[in-house]
Amino acid sequence: MKIVALAGGVGGAKLVDGLARLLSPDELTVVVNTGDDFNHLGLRICPDLDTVCYTLAGLANPTTGWGRSGETWNALEQLARLGGPTWFRLGDLDLATHLERTRRLKAGDALSRVTRDFCAAWGVRHPVLPMTDQVFETWVLTVEHGWLPFQEYFVRHACEPVVKGFEFRGAESARPAPGVLEAIGAADAVVVCPSNPWVSIDPIFKVEGIKQAIQGCPVRVAVSPIIGGKAVKGPAAKMYAELGIEPSALAVARHYTGRLTGFIFDREDSQYMSDISALGIRAVVLDTLMKTNEDRVNLACKVLDFCALNQTGIRRS
Amino acid sequence: MKIVALAGGVGGAKLVDGLARLLSPDELTVVVNTGDDFNHLGLRICPDLDTVCYTLAGLANPTTGWGRSGETWNALEQLARLGGPTWFRLGDLDLATHLERTRRLKAGDALSRVTRDFCAAWGVRHPVLPMTDQVFETWVLTVEHGWLPFQEYFVRHACEPVVKGFEFRGAESARPAPGVLEAIGAADAVVVCPSNPWVSIDPIFKVEGIKQAIQGCPVRVAVSPIIGGKAVKGPAAKMYAELGIEPSALAVARHYTGRLTGFIFDREDSQYMSDISALGIRAVVLDTLMKTNEDRVNLACKVLDFCALNQTGIRRS
Repeated sequence: MKIVALAGGVGGAKLVDGLARLLSPDELTVVVNTGDDFNHLGLRICPDLDTVCYTLAGLANPTTGWGRSGETWNALEQLARLGGPTWFRLGDLDLATHLERTRRLKAGDALSRVTRDFCAAWGVRHPVLPMTDQVFETWVLTVEHGWLPFQEYFVRHACEPVVKGFEFRGAESARPAPGVLEAIGAADAVVVCPSNPWVSIDPIFKVEGIKQAIQGCPVRVAVSPIIGGKAVKGPAAKMYAELGIEPSALAVARHYTGRLTGFIFDREDSQYMSDISALGIRAVVLDTLMKTNEDRVNLACKVLDFCALNQTGIRRS
Repeated sequence: MKIVALAGGVGGAKLVDGLARLLSPDELTVVVNTGDDFNHLGLRICPDLDTVCYTLAGLANPTTGWGRSGETWNALEQLARLGGPTWFRLGDLDLATHLERTRRLKAGDALSRVTRDFCAAWGVRHPVLPMTDQVFETWVLTVEHGWLPFQEYFVRHACEPVVKGFEFRGAESARPAPGVLEAIGAADAVVVCPSNPWVSIDPIFKVEGIKQAIQGCPVRVAVSPIIGGKAVKGPAAKMYAELGIEPSALAVARHYTGRLTGFIFDREDSQYMSDISALGIRAVVLDTLMKTNEDRVNLACKVLDFCALNQTGIRRS
C-alpha cells in the first residue's frame, strides 16, 4: 500500500517515524508543512521539515521532540553575550542545517531539492517533501498583539496570546513542491498525522491543487492530535477553546469534515464515537499516545490496518 | 602620549595588545583593516577586526592567533556532513559574532557601531575602529587563478597562488569610519603594527583622507613584519618575492617610503641599518618577535619609547 503522510512537527514526526519503520521508501512519502518557516538571524529556518527529517534520521532530541540529540549551545550563549536574539533556540548542530540551507536557497536551489540532498546526507531513505517551494507564511491573529508571524506566536510568545484567527500569506501563489501531487496521485491512502489541524495540516490543504489531489485519493485517514480534551503537545486545544470550540477529538473530526474517509482517535475519547460516526466517516478508537518508539510502530501498524479497512471495506483486524 | 595603531590580523593584534596593557583607553585607538572582510554562508565576516577584538578581550586562541580559545566545531562538522563549504573554519563561538553582526548590519547599523557594541560586551575598553564602514575589498591577482577575493587567496588557496598584484575595490568611495580621522588628528603618534604591508596596511592608507591625516601626524612609526627575510606569519615575504622584491626589513622600509618618520626592525636584520637610515627615517633595531604576552608588552614599551624619541628628538632609553 502506498501512503502519503501529511505532517507538522513533533506529533506528526512520531507517526511518520512509525510508518517509516513499516513501509519501504517506495511506499511512504511525507509531505510537510512549511507555513511555520521563517527568517531569523539571516537564516531560513524550517522547523517542521527539520523535526521530521531529524526524527527519521535518528538525530532528533528524544526529550524535546524538536532539535538535535547531543546538541550544544555554544553559539547561542555567545549570541546572548552580544545582546542578540535568543528567543528561538538554535543549537550548534542545528545551526549548520540553517546555514547550509540558506546558502543553497540563495544560490537558487529549491527547498525541495535542498531537503532531498540533506535527507541523503542524513541517511533518510523515505522521500520528505516540503508542501511547497514558495514562501507560504502562517500568521496568527491575537487579541494582545494583533497579527503575529507563526514563530513569534509559537516560540517568542510561548503560545500565550489569545488566538482569534489565522491567515496564510502567499497561499494563493504557492504551488505544490515537485513530487507532491504525483505522490498523492499514486497513493492508496493519505494519512493526516496527529499534528495541529489549524496551523500544521490546514496550510498543506491550502496549497493550490493539494486539496483536490487528496480528495481524489480513495482513503483519507486522520489521527486526532487531541486526547482527553488536551493536545499532546502544542496549542491545538487552546486554539479550539479560544475560537469558541470545545477542544476534543470530535472538534478535530468536525474540523476535517468533508476531507476524510476515516478518523482515528484515542480510547480515552470513546464517548464521541457516535457523534463522529454521525459525520459520515468511519471511526475507530485506539491507544494513540506515542511515548516510546514501540508506540510509534504500534500506532503506525494500526493506522495502516485502518487504511486497509477503509480501502476494502472489510475489517482485517 | 596619544597613539593610533594601524593593524591587520594576528601580528598587528599582538602589538596592539601590548600597547593596550600600557596605555589607557584615552591614549590608544586602534584602526583595523577591513579589506579582508567578506560574505560567506550569508554571514559578514571581518577577520582582522575579530582577531584584534578577540585578542584585546582575552578571548583569542593563543595557539593559532586567530579564532577563539576554547572553540568548538560542532556546526562546522555538521556543515561538512551536508556538503557545505568548510574551507573557512568557523567555530561555534565565532559563529555567534558573525550571525549577530550580519543581523545588525542588515538592520542598518554601521560596522563601527556594531564593533563598538561588541567591544563593550566583550570588555574591550580601548576604541577599536574599522577603517571604513563601507565595502572595501582587497583582491589579489594571481598567476594561476586570475583575480581572487582576498579570503579565497588567503584561506581557500592557502596563499599558494603566485601573486602579481592587488586591487582595492570600493576604495574610491570608502570613507573613514566615524572617529578614525578624529583619532589620527588628535594622535601624537601613529604606529603601523607588524602586519602585512600589502594587504593589511596599504588598504588603510587607501581610504579617502586617512593617508593625508596620517601625514599630518608628527610621529609615524612602523614595526617590520619581516624578520630574517621571513614573515612571522602570513604571506608578506612570499608576496615581496613574487613581486620581484627581495623580502627583508629593508623592503618593508622602502614600501613605506614617504609615509614614516621612524622604523623598527629586528636585531637579526641589523645589516640593513645603513640602507634604511639612508631612506631619511630614524631607524632602530630591537627584539621584535612576540612569542609571549611579556614580549608584547616589552615591544610595545620600546615602540612607545621610540615614538617619544621621534617626537622629541631626544633618546630616552
